Amino acid sequence: MIPKGTVKRIMKQHTEMNVSAESVEKLVELLQEIIVTTTQIAEQNAGKDKRKTLKARDIEQCDAERLRRKIVEVSERTEKVNILTNEILNVVANELERY
Amino acid sequence: MIPKGTVKRIMKQHTEMNVSAESVEKLVELLQEIIVTTTQIAEQNAGKDKRKTLKARDIEQCDAERLRRKIVEVSERTEKVNILTNEILNVVANELERY
Repeated sequence: MIPKGTVKRIMKQHTEMNVSAESVEKLVELLQEIIVTTTQIAEQNAGKDKRKTLKARDIEQCDAERLRRKIVEVSERTEKVNILTNEILNVVANELERY
Repeated sequence: MIPKGTVKRIMKQHTEMNVSAESVEKLVELLQEIIVTTTQIAEQNAGKDKRKTLKARDIEQCDAERLRRKIVEVSERTEKVNILTNEILNVVANELERY
């Protein structure tokens, strides 16, 4: 478990507002989720390269992939986003990977 | 600074692969960035409500806003994404906020 004290300290370095215990808990929860998702995506990236070790570049590629998954998930559950949009979103995700 | 040992332990719980030191460092870096960005967006959310304390719901709304910013940033730097796409992407970001 990521230590709440550390997260709270970093938060307080970047805001003048009071930082409630519940906001720290929510952020810790989000960070834990990100570690899990990122690790799973990184594993797939390493697998594609037939490696058995996760490298820094596997983690870097995750940001683009996480965004792509989220976009696809949203576009699948709303009628407002159609096939054409999926194409456009793929262009965005590919662009993200390039930078 | 988020402890590398903790992050590595969580990663190892979710992959059978070896976890290199550089991949842990990269993920810690990403998590630190997410804490900073999330805190700044949460502060804006709390400010809109004229509150002086960050609450859990301010953190929850950040995920949608972070995605929106990233999409806008990408769409601004590529010619393939035009004004129409921005509209579509706003629909996506708004849908994300609703769930």
